[in-house]
Amino acid sequence: MKLATLKDGSRDGQLLVVSRDLCTAHVAHGIAPTLQRALDDWGFVSPQLEDLYRTLNDGKTRHAFAFDPAACAAPLPRAYQWADGSAYVNHVELMRRARDAEMPESFRSDPLMVQGGSDDFLGPRDSARFLTEDWGIGFEAEVAVVIDDVPMGATPEACASHVRLLMLVNDWSLRDLIPAELAKGFGFFQSKPATAFGPVAVTPDELGDAWRDGRVHLPVLCHWNGRKVGEADAGTDMVFDFPRLIAHVVRTRNARAGSIVGSGTVSNRDPSRGWSCIAEARALEMIASGRAQTSFMRFGDTIRIEMIGRDGLSVFGAIEQTVARAGG
Amino acid sequence: MKLATLKDGSRDGQLLVVSRDLCTAHVAHGIAPTLQRALDDWGFVSPQLEDLYRTLNDGKTRHAFAFDPAACAAPLPRAYQWADGSAYVNHVELMRRARDAEMPESFRSDPLMVQGGSDDFLGPRDSARFLTEDWGIGFEAEVAVVIDDVPMGATPEACASHVRLLMLVNDWSLRDLIPAELAKGFGFFQSKPATAFGPVAVTPDELGDAWRDGRVHLPVLCHWNGRKVGEADAGTDMVFDFPRLIAHVVRTRNARAGSIVGSGTVSNRDPSRGWSCIAEARALEMIASGRAQTSFMRFGDTIRIEMIGRDGLSVFGAIEQTVARAGG
Repeated sequence: MKLATLKDGSRDGQLLVVSRDLCTAHVAHGIAPTLQRALDDWGFVSPQLEDLYRTLNDGKTRHAFAFDPAACAAPLPRAYQWADGSAYVNHVELMRRARDAEMPESFRSDPLMVQGGSDDFLGPRDSARFLTEDWGIGFEAEVAVVIDDVPMGATPEACASHVRLLMLVNDWSLRDLIPAELAKGFGFFQSKPATAFGPVAVTPDELGDAWRDGRVHLPVLCHWNGRKVGEADAGTDMVFDFPRLIAHVVRTRNARAGSIVGSGTVSNRDPSRGWSCIAEARALEMIASGRAQTSFMRFGDTIRIEMIGRDGLSVFGAIEQTVARAGG
Repeated sequence: MKLATLKDGSRDGQLLVVSRDLCTAHVAHGIAPTLQRALDDWGFVSPQLEDLYRTLNDGKTRHAFAFDPAACAAPLPRAYQWADGSAYVNHVELMRRARDAEMPESFRSDPLMVQGGSDDFLGPRDSARFLTEDWGIGFEAEVAVVIDDVPMGATPEACASHVRLLMLVNDWSLRDLIPAELAKGFGFFQSKPATAFGPVAVTPDELGDAWRDGRVHLPVLCHWNGRKVGEADAGTDMVFDFPRLIAHVVRTRNARAGSIVGSGTVSNRDPSRGWSCIAEARALEMIASGRAQTSFMRFGDTIRIEMIGRDGLSVFGAIEQTVARAGG
């Protein structure tokens, strides 16, 4: 099942069921007004949404309309939790090696995780607006899961059954603000601006056998200003699978329905796969030549992030954003 | 105006208007079902709530009932953002001095801020449940504001007008998990379990002239197992006022209605005021004698946090929690 949120002027938008080929959509009103409301009572609501999804795919709904990703907010325009892991340890290792720092061996057994802001997400075609180009603006392509209620202390095995939806993420980062912020010792805040999400959230069954071992075994395609810069496979080199990341979230507290848990920047050891974030490109250059050459993004730059399924269809639709001046 | 949320089995509870003396309450249904919904459209909704508040205080409502803090969830049982500052720099300085570390001078001009989990808050009388006593369980008394929509880049002056409500906070911390977590470099996650809030959220006018300069000029009373351990004044030694903290939140992104911005542990330079968190007590002991003697909390321990107004009335009602074993 594929779900999206239509911008309708309200804070949470309107829940849509979207056809598998992303061509048509149908308002889910009468079932659940918003995606959060569906997640709040998933066991009761999701079978009704699945029914509508089947009817829509069969072309038998009366009020289907053409699906337009540009009319969409993030599937969850705002959420109660956005916990972002760093499951692709290769990325962490490269970032450290570029500044001659060693990565502690414990990073392979204990995930890094960041509590992100979740009150103001960007839709898949929303401009990413910043007050200045001087903050080191960079995209970061990730995959995320949306979970239902998970109790404190749940094991990874138990967490596996709580994955309700998968989403594609552009975790915007302000790289030039990171060093000073991390030096303060309390983690990221201003260096992590509003995060963007792909047009539709999908249930795991949509991926067929590309969803296995708690990972999405498909490449994440990144095009920066029209040029392909990355096609890292999200199933390769993901040291911590999603159930393990969820278990990290709930070690000392409950997690509630609609919480989003991210993979961190997708990164492969195979350099021919390119990169999913500019900071990693710069780290690779630094390691190779002692000098980072690739600049961060400028106003007017575009980024496209997409994942194509084994059937050749776009799984989540594409994130297509332009960097723009805030207030402009 | 004083507002609370009645536990009714739903995820967001039911919005109540509570009398100034905290004796009676009235369901706000017909005005707004939940506090988040009121905040989503504050300009339209709050005058209606104020009307009901006046009628309730005059004893003229038909369906008022006795207010019971034990029946309450947190005013916002879940929120879209919980951004917690460290505005009482004295606390930060003591914590560092206890481990022979110097505090950078920049900490007096650039606030520390932590993005907290906000999907599962505790009510004022909910037990604080943990899987083990071995995590260094500690209370932390704070004040927080709830804001409406604030645009990216807003100045502290502009932010001042966005404070809608004030709340009392118990920012539970797992102190023995903090060193390893901070050593990873990405900030707090597992060391910050579910946060608890006082029974009612209040509009700033409820404080009279105790709300000025963006600070709450009243002491925060902390009783641990019935013994008073702290009465630090929240208006003293708060280096960053709330408008300044909100401006920090929105430097690189918008903040949306219902975001909660916290002061951090209230801490006074005057040692006769005691302390608002156990870790600070231990830091003071460490500085004085080289050895921390006060232990963290055990299952069965109780903590009471309250703020009394100049009129002798409890402003927010009391947070009264017991530490308990999760699953028990």
